[in-house]
Amino acid sequence: MTYTPPINEQRFVLDHVVKIGELAENDAYVAASPDMVDAILEGAGAFAAGEYAPLNRIGDQVGACWDDGVVTMPAGYREAYAAFVESGWGSINGPEAFGGQGLPYALATVVMEDLGSANMGFSLVNMLTPGAIESLVAHGSEAQQALYLPKLITGEWTGTMNLTEPQAGSDVGALRTTATPVGDGTFRIKGIKIFITFGEHDLTDNIIHLVLARTPGAPAGTRGISLFLVPKFRLDADGRPDAANDVRCVSIEHKMGIHASPTCVLSFGDHDDCIGELIGGEFGGIKAMFTMMNNARLNVGLQGVQIAERATQQAVRYAMDRVQSARAGGASRDPVAIIQHPDVRRMLLRMKALTQGARALVYYAAGQLDRAHLGDDAANDRLELLTPLAKAWGTDVGCEVASLGVQVHGGMGFIEETGAAQHYRDIRIAPIYEGTNGIQAADLVGRKLGLSGGAAFARLIADMRAEAQDAGLRSLIDASEAVGTHLAAASADDRLAGSYPFLTMLSVAVAGWLMERQARIAANAEGDRDFLAMKQAAARYFIAQIVPEAEGLKASAVAGAEMFFAVEDEAFAA
Amino acid sequence: MTYTPPINEQRFVLDHVVKIGELAENDAYVAASPDMVDAILEGAGAFAAGEYAPLNRIGDQVGACWDDGVVTMPAGYREAYAAFVESGWGSINGPEAFGGQGLPYALATVVMEDLGSANMGFSLVNMLTPGAIESLVAHGSEAQQALYLPKLITGEWTGTMNLTEPQAGSDVGALRTTATPVGDGTFRIKGIKIFITFGEHDLTDNIIHLVLARTPGAPAGTRGISLFLVPKFRLDADGRPDAANDVRCVSIEHKMGIHASPTCVLSFGDHDDCIGELIGGEFGGIKAMFTMMNNARLNVGLQGVQIAERATQQAVRYAMDRVQSARAGGASRDPVAIIQHPDVRRMLLRMKALTQGARALVYYAAGQLDRAHLGDDAANDRLELLTPLAKAWGTDVGCEVASLGVQVHGGMGFIEETGAAQHYRDIRIAPIYEGTNGIQAADLVGRKLGLSGGAAFARLIADMRAEAQDAGLRSLIDASEAVGTHLAAASADDRLAGSYPFLTMLSVAVAGWLMERQARIAANAEGDRDFLAMKQAAARYFIAQIVPEAEGLKASAVAGAEMFFAVEDEAFAA
Repeated sequence: MTYTPPINEQRFVLDHVVKIGELAENDAYVAASPDMVDAILEGAGAFAAGEYAPLNRIGDQVGACWDDGVVTMPAGYREAYAAFVESGWGSINGPEAFGGQGLPYALATVVMEDLGSANMGFSLVNMLTPGAIESLVAHGSEAQQALYLPKLITGEWTGTMNLTEPQAGSDVGALRTTATPVGDGTFRIKGIKIFITFGEHDLTDNIIHLVLARTPGAPAGTRGISLFLVPKFRLDADGRPDAANDVRCVSIEHKMGIHASPTCVLSFGDHDDCIGELIGGEFGGIKAMFTMMNNARLNVGLQGVQIAERATQQAVRYAMDRVQSARAGGASRDPVAIIQHPDVRRMLLRMKALTQGARALVYYAAGQLDRAHLGDDAANDRLELLTPLAKAWGTDVGCEVASLGVQVHGGMGFIEETGAAQHYRDIRIAPIYEGTNGIQAADLVGRKLGLSGGAAFARLIADMRAEAQDAGLRSLIDASEAVGTHLAAASADDRLAGSYPFLTMLSVAVAGWLMERQARIAANAEGDRDFLAMKQAAARYFIAQIVPEAEGLKASAVAGAEMFFAVEDEAFAA
Repeated sequence: MTYTPPINEQRFVLDHVVKIGELAENDAYVAASPDMVDAILEGAGAFAAGEYAPLNRIGDQVGACWDDGVVTMPAGYREAYAAFVESGWGSINGPEAFGGQGLPYALATVVMEDLGSANMGFSLVNMLTPGAIESLVAHGSEAQQALYLPKLITGEWTGTMNLTEPQAGSDVGALRTTATPVGDGTFRIKGIKIFITFGEHDLTDNIIHLVLARTPGAPAGTRGISLFLVPKFRLDADGRPDAANDVRCVSIEHKMGIHASPTCVLSFGDHDDCIGELIGGEFGGIKAMFTMMNNARLNVGLQGVQIAERATQQAVRYAMDRVQSARAGGASRDPVAIIQHPDVRRMLLRMKALTQGARALVYYAAGQLDRAHLGDDAANDRLELLTPLAKAWGTDVGCEVASLGVQVHGGMGFIEETGAAQHYRDIRIAPIYEGTNGIQAADLVGRKLGLSGGAAFARLIADMRAEAQDAGLRSLIDASEAVGTHLAAASADDRLAGSYPFLTMLSVAVAGWLMERQARIAANAEGDRDFLAMKQAAARYFIAQIVPEAEGLKASAVAGAEMFFAVEDEAFAA
């Protein structure tokens, strides 16, 4: 149940998919030298494997504990988090002006992958804070930035995102939390927020809540929402945590997985004394929220990669050790390691192929984010187009690979002590939070297909077509273009009816394109022979088997909504 | 979180897929009159919903508890089990000579579906005993039958199947438990068995263990295995439980799901005083085991249907109640029940279609079993051919539908109190036990394709082709035939490499064939309008969307094993 950082693979994808060398040619990223990249990969991998991975099981078994408003993390977590802050792994891509290292986001992605593979539940605390940082960088005042950014960038304080309320889940605009001006520029916050990840914990001496709320007389829906900064402890004149703010953790949820991540119900202003400050302008909340959430969506897609990697490593080890039955059709009747049985080997190769494919897609999107930060509008378009793919398909891959991991273990996979079941339970949240995968699909067909008048989609198809060689892959690219064009012109209902299968098709096309490229490079590369051989084998499986499966979704993608609405609601209960 | 027996659907499938009326024309099943069928459907459904379903959550939360060899079931379970025995739901298809009702197995299947939908973990105790009954009916002596069958058929005693040992999982032939003749016709049993479902519990005053073991000098492998009957309490001269046998429950497993089902490690003969009797001839164990396991495989496939049904009911209720966001593209900005959103409706319709498709396949196989019992060899061939499909695809459907059920609930799906997560955890064992789904696929291509010289497969294809009308469905039938023919002639490795995707293709073809037939009948039937409309909608979705997906697996099914073995084992760890 240990974790081995896949350094060869991470480096290869950074080189040939992210093209980190190309990025480092820019002044802004000049620090991302090959040596620095190696140092980060090795350092972060060793840190995650050494500090986070050993706590994964206790995190599941004991989990975060709530008692009278106080949340206590399991034994070892405070020390591991302190080591995280100390070693600086949270500051990779933070702005240098506030103590960050100003390195590409793609490198922060590698660090986050290692932390999450090692301990998905715990790593959520590291995943949420960057959203708060981004929001403050983009929308905060100079004073807010100076006060909060340095502590958030080191990780000395953590950040939270407070969107959801009981009646306002996917529909954020339905939220009711209020923010009333005090008169001194601050606001009194009052309301209940649910599903707040690491909304309360004992790892740091302050927590910075970013809270969506409505000011008096604000318009209904998302247009009337503003974003507020609400610290757990208000700061004194020297910027140190001082008096407790009126925020209380009412309870934490009993979840199927990620037990190390306290999912909190937070009550703001029970005693009408919860003070917050506006971030950005009034009614700028929804824009600021998208700033917070966009990276979060890539990071959730990355969680699919994290668990897929961890589950694959564990299944491969088990299959190499577990001896059972002779090879069918073989001359010998001696039992063999189960990795030798064709159907087990099929599952393992599928796990490798899906994991590598999802990593390529998520890292590629991260590389586009870095280019967008440099002012490349086409890269920004591509990032926006790929974000729903990375989030939804990446997490679907995580779930499928974790399930295959359970299956490879046979009966032992269902026994909790083995660890395979934890991965299966942990990752199941990922297709749900940060916008369900259905919402990602709606975003793809509703907003992203039409981005830049459709040019963003057309350019992606053209880039894939210019490089892809395999006939099946080219066929899937053609099919994706045809379906995308069809859906862009379809009614809202028909577009949504085909959105999910279309998202899967396009994701597999993009991942297949990037996998084929890597296989081509690996065939002529020098280095770790086993790694290069597996890269080619995984790409071959991906293109020969996963790509045709995805093309099998075409009928669903264009079938339209009429079929769904041909029966009344009540018939579903018949 | 209640359960509503799907009586309309069960009756429709019995009528048009099982053709229960045709069965009842035989003297053996004359008791299965329409009135009797209705009485069973209504009675069993009401019993399951009233007695088993309310205990599902406590079964998950508290579960079976082990203390010093004794297993205690959660509160309410003893009473519910006593009610089960009292009401006679265990005796539906037991032989009349021993107190059974001699009704078709297809009707017992409906009863088992209800019990498992209501409480999957608990219902395992009802699922295992029939295997013991079948073994005794087929292989037991008259004395054994007279002593044990009446009590097993009522359910006053329960049965277990003891195959697995730590080194002998899928490879049963590797087992080491010994049976040494005492000299009086009985044997001393010694060994450790693992993963024994309901191997110990407090529901009944005896448990009848069926144990595979080796006699002295027995040949290696499966040829040297014999089956023994080992009661928890030996019987006195009047056939009543008397002195405790030397069997001890050493521990129970901590599992991801089905917590109400104690999964036991049983130690036989710690004090060299565990007495068993041979069932059937020496070395007849493997044959008797297949008698036990064959029905068990159908019943595990049925578990997929059980959880799919329960998860679908729960998701439909949630989606009809949960109001969130306006319809995209609609005129009104008022939020609607989420069942109105096209992608949610897609998920619900997919759940309905998959559940009905799997039920059709499993019930159809059960109907073949009843015909086989009447001496119909072609039906027996078909049952054997369909058993791996029912087990593997049925359980894959269960997992997929339970996952969709979680997804429909959004964030609430990940919260344990909602109940959707329990279904997702419970059903994950089903693709593993009673022969992993990979082993089912191997059985399909290794033994079943060649059954009766290939005629069993050819006849199934011919029957489907004679009735199927939709072009896509006919195309999948053609593809299934082509792949099956290809695999039958392929090397062992290539055959196994394509076995799993082929199993899925053929399963979807069979289910699609049976769904299309039902839709045709529903279009002209009178009765519950909502039910008949949904039957047609579900069939339409199945054929328009699930069938083409399955055809997308063709490339994988014929790709062969070379791709899997092109890399060394070690490369998987690279």
